[in-house]
Amino acid sequence: MTINTLIHQIKRKKSFLCVGLDTDLAKIPAVLLDKEDPIFEFNKAIIDATHRFAVAYKPNIAFYEAHGIKGWESLKKTIAYLNRTYPEVFTIADAKRGDIGNTSTMYAKAFFEDLDFDSVTVAPYMGKDSVEPFLAFEDKVTILLALTSNPGAFDFQMQQSKEGDILYQKVIKESLQWNNSENLMYVVGATKAEFLGEIRKLIPNNFLLVPGVGAQGGSLEEVCKYGLNDAVGLLVNSSRGIIYASKEQDFADAAAQQAEALQKQMESILIQEKLV
Amino acid sequence: MTINTLIHQIKRKKSFLCVGLDTDLAKIPAVLLDKEDPIFEFNKAIIDATHRFAVAYKPNIAFYEAHGIKGWESLKKTIAYLNRTYPEVFTIADAKRGDIGNTSTMYAKAFFEDLDFDSVTVAPYMGKDSVEPFLAFEDKVTILLALTSNPGAFDFQMQQSKEGDILYQKVIKESLQWNNSENLMYVVGATKAEFLGEIRKLIPNNFLLVPGVGAQGGSLEEVCKYGLNDAVGLLVNSSRGIIYASKEQDFADAAAQQAEALQKQMESILIQEKLV
Repeated sequence: MTINTLIHQIKRKKSFLCVGLDTDLAKIPAVLLDKEDPIFEFNKAIIDATHRFAVAYKPNIAFYEAHGIKGWESLKKTIAYLNRTYPEVFTIADAKRGDIGNTSTMYAKAFFEDLDFDSVTVAPYMGKDSVEPFLAFEDKVTILLALTSNPGAFDFQMQQSKEGDILYQKVIKESLQWNNSENLMYVVGATKAEFLGEIRKLIPNNFLLVPGVGAQGGSLEEVCKYGLNDAVGLLVNSSRGIIYASKEQDFADAAAQQAEALQKQMESILIQEKLV
Repeated sequence: MTINTLIHQIKRKKSFLCVGLDTDLAKIPAVLLDKEDPIFEFNKAIIDATHRFAVAYKPNIAFYEAHGIKGWESLKKTIAYLNRTYPEVFTIADAKRGDIGNTSTMYAKAFFEDLDFDSVTVAPYMGKDSVEPFLAFEDKVTILLALTSNPGAFDFQMQQSKEGDILYQKVIKESLQWNNSENLMYVVGATKAEFLGEIRKLIPNNFLLVPGVGAQGGSLEEVCKYGLNDAVGLLVNSSRGIIYASKEQDFADAAAQQAEALQKQMESILIQEKLV
């Protein structure tokens, strides 16, 4: 999927909502636990209930890997279901991979070829040759960690260099020089909305994937104030606030209500900003 | 396995060799491709042939993930074979994971519980709360990326802060303050042996996992000159130089020869330094 297709979908659905599939056996309704593949059944129900309000889905790969082969099967079924049933949605493997060149190529194959995700999240610590193998897949999107939403983001990402650059800014600036950098998006935590304005100056055109609205405490209005651009340019993720809205049999309906509530807020902002 | 058990094994085998299992279907002998699980058969033959000379094995997780469920099955069989047949060897999941707290816990479960590796490599970009969930497994080892062996290491890891710290040094210093930091090892690339001396001043006691000897161009003598400590304190990895020493039917024998040659060099250095 191209970024233009994503923008088209955003304008049609009046939503830039990404639903995070952090599917945890300890948190899904007990009624599903007797099924052969509870994780997939949960995801399928959530996707069916929320796809009208969401433009992207983001399985958090750790939650699948933790179950080994069974988890990998649940992940494969989930992405296959998304690609087959809702081919218009943008899919994100939230994997935060990154390694030396030939190894990153293998990770890119895992997520872009074997699983056929539209995009994957990548960590920048190992530099250019650890990210370019992902960017080499020209019809795919690479989503680079810039400023994350967790407390540990302040440990290294905010380190100021003697030249004055903050590390996450340097990551953004350098990455713009890499091959196929037009296929980059960036992870920017919603808990740090005040930094979004600075980031927008560096990358006026790239999409930002913003986790941390809801359970992690970020505000949608703040994120939009600093993060929107002429092509919307935002994907705002909510995981727990949507998928665990209810632990009872009505979990899918409850998820749909939460997703719709966020979509309505997004629609109202998009109209106000004359973006739809 | 405890670090003391590893040290005991190093002294017994007179080796601090780690064999990297970067097993690639495009590079293994054609004769194996008809087998049901060529990757596992290759790994098993390599392990059987080299275990007398090596103290650790390091599957590079990307090479398994690239094959999806089949790859995960090969990985699971490989680690199970290692744990069952050679329980004395130290096992490293070279996964370079790292995410916000509850997600890192899931990754830790994947490698420490589901697969039962002794250790896993972790990327530091997201800071303390992305690494401590790994360290919370007290009988396991967390191997933190400090200074890697690829060209991209110079993009961010070498950034000097306005306080004078280089980023990789700050990663090391900060990590020493984290819970259970005594269970940390560090990845330090052999192509940067001159930095090993500086790193040893910061962490005189921790083990260093050194990739990049051989195919990536590092010298064993240089690494030892700067990296050895009183408890040896080094694991030196070789992947391609050993496992692809021959592409013919004699691949396991050729791997054993290469592993033995490295072990002999290590033995000679250990004797010279009076460490065995």
